[in-house]
Amino acid sequence: MERKIRMGMVGGGAGAFIGNVHRMAARLDGNIELVCGAFGRDGEKSRATGKSLFIPADRCYAGYEEMFAKESQLPADKRMDFVSITTPNHLHYPIAMKALQLGFHVVCEKPMTLTVEEAESLAAEVKKTGLLFCLTHNYTAYPMARFARQLVREGKLGDIRRIMVEYPQGWLADAVTVDNKQGSWRTDPKTSGITCCMGDIGSHSENLAEFVSGLKITELCANLKTFVPGRTLDDDGDVLLKFDNGAIGTLTASQIAVGEENALKLRIYGSRAALEWRQENPESLIVKRNDGAMETFRRNWAGAASNWSRLPAGHPEGFIEAFASLYNDFAQAIDAFNAKRSYTPEYPSVDDGVRGVKIIHAIVASASGDQKWIKL
Amino acid sequence: MERKIRMGMVGGGAGAFIGNVHRMAARLDGNIELVCGAFGRDGEKSRATGKSLFIPADRCYAGYEEMFAKESQLPADKRMDFVSITTPNHLHYPIAMKALQLGFHVVCEKPMTLTVEEAESLAAEVKKTGLLFCLTHNYTAYPMARFARQLVREGKLGDIRRIMVEYPQGWLADAVTVDNKQGSWRTDPKTSGITCCMGDIGSHSENLAEFVSGLKITELCANLKTFVPGRTLDDDGDVLLKFDNGAIGTLTASQIAVGEENALKLRIYGSRAALEWRQENPESLIVKRNDGAMETFRRNWAGAASNWSRLPAGHPEGFIEAFASLYNDFAQAIDAFNAKRSYTPEYPSVDDGVRGVKIIHAIVASASGDQKWIKL
Amino acid sequence: MERKIRMGMVGGGAGAFIGNVHRMAARLDGNIELVCGAFGRDGEKSRATGKSLFIPADRCYAGYEEMFAKESQLPADKRMDFVSITTPNHLHYPIAMKALQLGFHVVCEKPMTLTVEEAESLAAEVKKTGLLFCLTHNYTAYPMARFARQLVREGKLGDIRRIMVEYPQGWLADAVTVDNKQGSWRTDPKTSGITCCMGDIGSHSENLAEFVSGLKITELCANLKTFVPGRTLDDDGDVLLKFDNGAIGTLTASQIAVGEENALKLRIYGSRAALEWRQENPESLIVKRNDGAMETFRRNWAGAASNWSRLPAGHPEGFIEAFASLYNDFAQAIDAFNAKRSYTPEYPSVDDGVRGVKIIHAIVASASGDQKWIKL
Amino acid sequence: MERKIRMGMVGGGAGAFIGNVHRMAARLDGNIELVCGAFGRDGEKSRATGKSLFIPADRCYAGYEEMFAKESQLPADKRMDFVSITTPNHLHYPIAMKALQLGFHVVCEKPMTLTVEEAESLAAEVKKTGLLFCLTHNYTAYPMARFARQLVREGKLGDIRRIMVEYPQGWLADAVTVDNKQGSWRTDPKTSGITCCMGDIGSHSENLAEFVSGLKITELCANLKTFVPGRTLDDDGDVLLKFDNGAIGTLTASQIAVGEENALKLRIYGSRAALEWRQENPESLIVKRNDGAMETFRRNWAGAASNWSRLPAGHPEGFIEAFASLYNDFAQAIDAFNAKRSYTPEYPSVDDGVRGVKIIHAIVASASGDQKWIKL
Repeated sequence: MERKIRMGMVGGGAGAFIGNVHRMAARLDGNIELVCGAFGRDGEKSRATGKSLFIPADRCYAGYEEMFAKESQLPADKRMDFVSITTPNHLHYPIAMKALQLGFHVVCEKPMTLTVEEAESLAAEVKKTGLLFCLTHNYTAYPMARFARQLVREGKLGDIRRIMVEYPQGWLADAVTVDNKQGSWRTDPKTSGITCCMGDIGSHSENLAEFVSGLKITELCANLKTFVPGRTLDDDGDVLLKFDNGAIGTLTASQIAVGEENALKLRIYGSRAALEWRQENPESLIVKRNDGAMETFRRNWAGAASNWSRLPAGHPEGFIEAFASLYNDFAQAIDAFNAKRSYTPEYPSVDDGVRGVKIIHAIVASASGDQKWIKL
Repeated sequence: MERKIRMGMVGGGAGAFIGNVHRMAARLDGNIELVCGAFGRDGEKSRATGKSLFIPADRCYAGYEEMFAKESQLPADKRMDFVSITTPNHLHYPIAMKALQLGFHVVCEKPMTLTVEEAESLAAEVKKTGLLFCLTHNYTAYPMARFARQLVREGKLGDIRRIMVEYPQGWLADAVTVDNKQGSWRTDPKTSGITCCMGDIGSHSENLAEFVSGLKITELCANLKTFVPGRTLDDDGDVLLKFDNGAIGTLTASQIAVGEENALKLRIYGSRAALEWRQENPESLIVKRNDGAMETFRRNWAGAASNWSRLPAGHPEGFIEAFASLYNDFAQAIDAFNAKRSYTPEYPSVDDGVRGVKIIHAIVASASGDQKWIKL
Repeated sequence: MERKIRMGMVGGGAGAFIGNVHRMAARLDGNIELVCGAFGRDGEKSRATGKSLFIPADRCYAGYEEMFAKESQLPADKRMDFVSITTPNHLHYPIAMKALQLGFHVVCEKPMTLTVEEAESLAAEVKKTGLLFCLTHNYTAYPMARFARQLVREGKLGDIRRIMVEYPQGWLADAVTVDNKQGSWRTDPKTSGITCCMGDIGSHSENLAEFVSGLKITELCANLKTFVPGRTLDDDGDVLLKFDNGAIGTLTASQIAVGEENALKLRIYGSRAALEWRQENPESLIVKRNDGAMETFRRNWAGAASNWSRLPAGHPEGFIEAFASLYNDFAQAIDAFNAKRSYTPEYPSVDDGVRGVKIIHAIVASASGDQKWIKL
Repeated sequence: MERKIRMGMVGGGAGAFIGNVHRMAARLDGNIELVCGAFGRDGEKSRATGKSLFIPADRCYAGYEEMFAKESQLPADKRMDFVSITTPNHLHYPIAMKALQLGFHVVCEKPMTLTVEEAESLAAEVKKTGLLFCLTHNYTAYPMARFARQLVREGKLGDIRRIMVEYPQGWLADAVTVDNKQGSWRTDPKTSGITCCMGDIGSHSENLAEFVSGLKITELCANLKTFVPGRTLDDDGDVLLKFDNGAIGTLTASQIAVGEENALKLRIYGSRAALEWRQENPESLIVKRNDGAMETFRRNWAGAASNWSRLPAGHPEGFIEAFASLYNDFAQAIDAFNAKRSYTPEYPSVDDGVRGVKIIHAIVASASGDQKWIKL
């Protein structure tokens, strides 16, 4: 790479979770520099966060509008190359649209937008501008998730028949306290949209299932539930799935599954072999057959998987490393963009974002109706 | 006990699987003696099986009708006390009815009957005769499954919110060969009834879920599928569940999940704690909470669980031992029956059988219709 | 088999553990009948135990001397074929010698005798009489332990370099109470001999290591310890090992490893592959390589292993089943002996017993001296 | 912190493994900046590595001598604050001594030096200069390793009786090829010193065991072996241990354990409870007792452990994160040093380094002699 890529951030102020993840991920491989940020709408708070990050006060902004306005006026060799959007859901769309219109590449959290219309409008803008856009479905960046996809592509599983994806968490099993910033905005329709659980982690689940299997969900039938009193959005749910090749399966997402941490798990059964991957134990991929020993592939032995890893197996890599692979990929893409070099990125695209928003809307529609199957 | 209890068997000839399991289970605790059998309808074959079991030729019969007729005429201190029915599904009903009518207690495989009408008729006969009837839902006899039920009863989980039960097997992933006796009758509607997968292992799944949770399924929505060409009955399926306390969940059963052996697994999430139990690792019960370490209970430490175990933990007990607990319980019940002593058995009853037949019929009805929810 | 084989038992009275295991194991496959027993030296207590086992009072004896005397006088078609010795260690030798001298085959618990001299004298008597003798190193009868041995024999591991065997238990971590019959005799030199921990479970460890590897320990260096105050025999210890092919390794046995149940574990590393087997999860055998996925073999796929199993994999078999394989093998051997047919049994022999006694004596000698290596 | 801390590196050129780990670790938390390096003795190669790291050519040096000379002459607000030494073993001592003499703080790889004399001389220099010195025994920086230590300190285990530490790897099971830079220098006495396996990973093992237990090894008895032909240093070995409180145990380290990746594992058994931690699954700590369920503590619930973690449990952290905790701690220490503020670091010290060198020398001495126990 010619130079370090310059990153700006919206969100990620005090009390944020995912903003700091984005920063660590961007740092890990050493080719991205965080040069500015709107770490909140309050200038003073934004500067306080920025100071702790060793960012000069004059590049800590009070809101994204100010940031975009001022950064646009900086010389080309100083201003940020891209913006990372790590705010609550309702702000993804306006910030991303504005960034694209001003010529900044975008890294955006999921779900991409609140509505299907916004999602499609954003996709159109990406196409129109030709700018780079990365949706942080970070779980697809784990080496063994990519290795799983490769096994499917190579036909090792035969015809896929059954897909089971589940994402149980327990952290919202009780009413959210006021100071739980993460819980508060996710359970509030104004900031979260029409769904809490399905939007937050159901979206990761469907994305991972389609990513690894290469299949598309064509019909679904959902049962959503809100268990915690006073809450208006779903905190739990199950979905029956049909895929475009005739496979069937289930998607379960829960934020009230007490005792579960972040237990995203994918199982795919084909006519010849099956695979199983667990995000909480991400360095192993299990392959099962009817006619032989169960195989546990590890990062070392996983062929192409080693492209997205930094250490020999047995030296555990985790969540930050996978997230960093998205950032590293994005930085490479910007470098190629600048040099007008061709580059085929692996990170999730704006189209993945559109699909995700469509699916979570179909799930919510299914859950609230009497029709058995909803077509996508 | 006053004396060994005398057992007769229908089924369990050459090539049988479950018949031999019943015999090992009946032997293990030393208080049951296999005294006669109709190990097939062919007298010669029946005697050949009987000889290998050290049963005199004159008590090896050609079919259950002959067995019941001849055993009925033997003196009370010689004739069998009960019959174990280990035949394909379609014969459970006629054999069990006849046995009850002649005054024999009955141990019967699941699913209990082919139709709901048969099931209810059999339940009525059990009530009418006052005889003992045990349905071999053997998984409920594992010590840790019973300990799980106890934890629920003691309120350790709080209010139950989510139940996930799954039973993936892979052994029917390909077309069944002629000499696969087990596969042949299960995939044949004449011997298996209206369902293969859901009847065979879906029934165990629903039974275990209701047994441990103490809840009843009230509504369900099913998606069944037949993957193997030429097969007419389901070999795979998923069901959305609603329970009588408002809990929701899923039931998955599959016989085409390649690489899976007999992977029955139950998870129950309550408002305070969750539990997880796997039949393939039956000696452990996992309890999870949001506010503490995950606990793995083992047979030794499982309080009442020790009533149904024979060895200290760390000395693995398994499938046969659990099955034997049903037989031991049944033998104790007969001993008490003979002595007109009160005894409260733990084995599954004819009412469990009725419920199971109803649920699998509801699942099949749901899967073939457009209505989202089927009420039970 | 021509007929059921008739078994007598010494030991196994009220409060016994292993006696009941022997009885369940003998029952499981249906070709052995327990016809008599000396379930203690007190005739009344012996008869009480016998009654609960449905054994006629006249075949419940007050001590082994009476049993042997009376059984010898019974007609050939009635008297016991063999005796199972399930007493504390110090009685193994006199009972086994007497049984052999009277023409009874013998099943004997380990360690075989208190001294090397006794062990060699017993081996000589077995050879002299030509009678059958089975030492119940039951762990070698697990299907996957035998499959492990087969992999070694087939050269799948290459040259063996490292063997690690460990057997941690926690049940003797505190002082033994008077009513703990199992703990009392094991910690008493009069009944247990010169060692507690190494004799009880170190002996199983060395036997399993040599059984699976096919190698012999040639030198050892031991560190034994007694942690619980008031105890005179070892309750914990480690041994460095050298094997006859140049391999090295360790043997650890502990009865004070709190929280451990019966965690016998064997690992063997060769030049090409390694294997790992855990008694508490006995249905799986792990094979690892530097150049491929880790393989988990299960009973189903384990080739010859299926000869010693009763159920499809996924239907857990455990401790009793493995023990029963010894008894079944022994019954087959007696049947062949009676018919003067050739038969090659798989159960551990009197020579295994001699070797075990020698090794535990070498361990105790090493631990009490200053010499680094003790040769065997 | 006032400003980013400035780091220089010796080692970490093309083909290096641990150098890149140090760089990622130093980047992760955003408070350290790599400003210069001697990434080899060849200036051109050093600059090539530096360029890929976006380091100006004039701060890429040909060897540490040049780096120290030139950096010393830079103004205080520009020159490096500390040097990270990531070279083969034989260079640790001269580089560290020189750095200290010139006033630079030092981060140094293990084993600290080739000889005990060097180690003690280095410790004296650290004391004399008052500069900061961190030895990268990175495994002690895992949150659950620190939580384990905390449980021991709180007395949760009671009196410690048995410690088992093992570190099996398989990567040196075959002869090392010329281009295997990692394997080449480790198996060469000139660069590795008197031991390969015990120095490389035995040192981590003893350090972790003493760190968590708070005990000191007082006597040991070792058996080392070289399995791969042509190799002169040990690639495998076992050590019997005695600790200063009377506990006993074993240390095993192997580089020829085929199929093992980096399987460092520690078990400590006390009179009340036991703990078990595996580096390859670092987010869990298992606690076992004789009188209750086995507990699996996760990072979330681990009290003080959360001080050294960055994400909620279920979002796997691994090797780099633990390593980064050392760097973060070191950066905080330098910041406090500069501000003359008191600060109590948690990273391993030069005294840990002295102890490590002493122990591995004792192990090598034991293995080559006939004396059973070597005192430390």
